[in-house]
Amino acid sequence: MRTKKPEIHLGLEGIYMAETSICSVNGIEGKLYYRGYSIEELAKHSDFEEVCFLLLNGYLPKEKEFLSFKDALVKERDLDPEVLQVITDTAGKGLPMDVLRTAVSLSAIYDPDVKDNSKEANMRKSIRLISKISSIVAAIGRVRDGEEYVRPEKKLGHVENFLYMLNGEKPSESERRMLDIMFVLHAEHSSNASTFSTIVTGATLSDIYSAITSGIGTLKGPLHGGADEAALRMMRAIGKPENTVKYINDALAGKQRIMGFGHRVYKAYDPRARIIRGYLEELREHASPEVENLTAIALEAEKLMIKKLGKAKGIWPNVDFFSGPVYTHIGIPSSLFTPLFAASRVPGWCAHMLEYWENNRLIRPLEYYTGKTNVKYISMTKR
Amino acid sequence: MRTKKPEIHLGLEGIYMAETSICSVNGIEGKLYYRGYSIEELAKHSDFEEVCFLLLNGYLPKEKEFLSFKDALVKERDLDPEVLQVITDTAGKGLPMDVLRTAVSLSAIYDPDVKDNSKEANMRKSIRLISKISSIVAAIGRVRDGEEYVRPEKKLGHVENFLYMLNGEKPSESERRMLDIMFVLHAEHSSNASTFSTIVTGATLSDIYSAITSGIGTLKGPLHGGADEAALRMMRAIGKPENTVKYINDALAGKQRIMGFGHRVYKAYDPRARIIRGYLEELREHASPEVENLTAIALEAEKLMIKKLGKAKGIWPNVDFFSGPVYTHIGIPSSLFTPLFAASRVPGWCAHMLEYWENNRLIRPLEYYTGKTNVKYISMTKR
Repeated sequence: MRTKKPEIHLGLEGIYMAETSICSVNGIEGKLYYRGYSIEELAKHSDFEEVCFLLLNGYLPKEKEFLSFKDALVKERDLDPEVLQVITDTAGKGLPMDVLRTAVSLSAIYDPDVKDNSKEANMRKSIRLISKISSIVAAIGRVRDGEEYVRPEKKLGHVENFLYMLNGEKPSESERRMLDIMFVLHAEHSSNASTFSTIVTGATLSDIYSAITSGIGTLKGPLHGGADEAALRMMRAIGKPENTVKYINDALAGKQRIMGFGHRVYKAYDPRARIIRGYLEELREHASPEVENLTAIALEAEKLMIKKLGKAKGIWPNVDFFSGPVYTHIGIPSSLFTPLFAASRVPGWCAHMLEYWENNRLIRPLEYYTGKTNVKYISMTKR
Repeated sequence: MRTKKPEIHLGLEGIYMAETSICSVNGIEGKLYYRGYSIEELAKHSDFEEVCFLLLNGYLPKEKEFLSFKDALVKERDLDPEVLQVITDTAGKGLPMDVLRTAVSLSAIYDPDVKDNSKEANMRKSIRLISKISSIVAAIGRVRDGEEYVRPEKKLGHVENFLYMLNGEKPSESERRMLDIMFVLHAEHSSNASTFSTIVTGATLSDIYSAITSGIGTLKGPLHGGADEAALRMMRAIGKPENTVKYINDALAGKQRIMGFGHRVYKAYDPRARIIRGYLEELREHASPEVENLTAIALEAEKLMIKKLGKAKGIWPNVDFFSGPVYTHIGIPSSLFTPLFAASRVPGWCAHMLEYWENNRLIRPLEYYTGKTNVKYISMTKR
C-alpha cells in the first residue's frame, strides 16, 4: 500500500525548525539584528569582542563584565603544542578548511572540560573556541607562507592580535578597524547552513567541539562560506572594469551562477553587503592599484546585476560579494577567506548551540522513499 | 508588525526533506529495507561488503563486479602514517569518538582525490572511507590497550580483517559472522540524525570528508550512537537479573530515559533489535557467565518494558538495546561501540551523500524570532 506522496521540503526552505532570541533577519526589507540590535549600529559602535558577549549572553556587558570576558578570551589564545604540530605538518599541503576542521576537532582532546557538558563548561568552551579558532587560522596562514608561528600578544584586542599572529606585526588602526567590522558582520546569521549543521550535530547531545567541527565542514562549501573567495576569483578573471559587462552577460547566458549574489533569505540588498560597500568606497582613496581595480570591477558588476536581476528576480549582492576586495586591502590571502569567515562565525554557532540545548530535541526529518519494494534476494550466481 | 506565529517543527519531526531510493523504514509495522531488500533477508544471506555495494550502487553485484569492489576495499585498508601518528598520540587520552572524528577529518588531507568532487572521485572516496574507518577504529582500540598497530591482512574479508587488526589474531567463524551481521544491521537507516547532518554539510558542496566528519560528530551523542554503550552501562548497573524489575521501575518513576528503547520512527519492535535478540538467544548456549548474565538482564528488562510501555506507548526495544551483550560476547570493549557503529554506518552516509548531490539543494531552514526588536545601542558607561 502506497500512501499519498507528502510534500517534500527540499532544502527545508520555509520550514521553521526552532524559536530563537539570537538573531532576526528581515529578508524583504534587508534588515539584520543581533539580539535586537541592528547590524548598522553594531558595525558603527561595537566591536567583535562585545558582539561575542552579546550573542552568547543576550545583552550588552557592563564595563566590569566586559573586562572579565575579554580577559577570558586573551587567556585562551595560545594553541596546544599538539594542535600546533598538526597544523605545522598539514597546512603546507592541505586545503585550509580541511586543516582548520581537523585542528578544531583535535582541540577537543586537549580541552580540560572535554567530558563536562554542563552549561557552565559549554560557556567556557565557547570562549575557548572563539579565541583559539582565530589563532588556528593565523597559524595556518603562517605555515602556508613558510613562516614560524607567532605567539599571541596579551595586550592586543582579538582582531588586532589575529592580524599580529598572521603577519608578525601589528596592523594599522584602519586595518584593525576594518577587519573588526568584517568580524562583526560575519558573527551570526540565524539558521544558515553551517549554524544549522552545528545544531543538528549537537542535538544528539554530542558536544560543542563536534558541533563546531560540523559547522566548519559545512561552511567550507562554495554555496556557503566559499562564496567570497569564488567572487574574488571572478573579479580577477574579469581582469579589467571594462570587461565586466561582457563577462557577466556571457556568464548569465551560460546559466552560470554569479557568486556573491542572491540569498535564500534576503530578497533585498543584504545589509551587510551595503555596509561593506560603504567602507570599500571609503578605502578606495588610499587603496593599492590592485584593490582599486577589484573595487571598480565589483561596482561595475553590482550595477549590471542589480539592473538585470535585482528588482526583477530579487537577486541582490550578499555579504560575500564585496568582502574579497576588503580582505585583499587588509592583506589577507584569498585562501584564508573561508577560514576567517569561520573564525568570525564561531560566536554565532556557539550561541545557537547553547540556546538549542536549553530546549533540546533530536533533529531527525524524514525522506520519501521512491525506490523498489520487497525485492527478493537472489544468490550471486543467478544474478 | 509581527506576523502570525508559524508552525515550529521542533526536531523536524514529520518533515520530509528529500526523496530517496536507498532505504525505507515502516515504523508502524517494524520493517526495514535497503534498496528494497528486507533487513531479514540481508542479515541471513548477504554480508557487509555486499551491502556496501548495494547501498552505493543500488543493486546486488554480479560476481566479477563484487570481486573488483572487494579488491578496491582491500587496497584502501592501511592507514596513512600521519593519520596513524595522530591516533597513536591521542587515543590513549582522548574520547574514542573525538579521536575518530579527528582522524577522519585529517585523512582528507592525504586523500589523492581531495580536490576532485566528481561523481567518480566521490565513489572512490566512499570506498576509501568505508575501508579506512574500520582500520581507524581498530587502531584506536589497539592504542587504548597499549598495543601496537596491526597492519591489515589482504586475504581477509572486511569484518574479519577488522577483528584481526583489533585483536592481533583472526576471529572464530562464529565471531566473524556475528559481527558481520551487526555491520549489516547498522549500515543504513534513512535520514537519521547523523545521516542528515552528513547531508546538511555536503549540501553546501563542501566535500565528502567534511560530510562524514559531521556524521561522526553527530553519531557521538547519547541520543544517537551512544545509546548502545549507555544501555550496556545500565545492564551492568542492574548487576543481576533479579534486580531488573526494581531498577527499571525506579528509573521510570524518576522519569529517567531507558536507553535502547523507543525510536523517532519505529512505533513497533525494531526489526534489527529482533534479529539481534535472535542471535543473542542462540549464542547464550556458549556464552561466558558475564554475557549470559547481561543477556538475562536484557531479556528481563525487555519483558517489563514491553509490558509497561510497548503497546501502550509505542516504546519498543531498538537496535541499541541488545547490541551491548553481543559486542561483549565478541570481545569488543564498550568504549568502541559507537566508533564501531560509525564504521558500520559509513556506507549509508556515503550513499545518501552521493544520492543527495544528484539533486542538490542547500539546506537552510528558518527560525522564529522571539527576542527583542529594535533595541537602541547605548554606550558602555550608560548601561
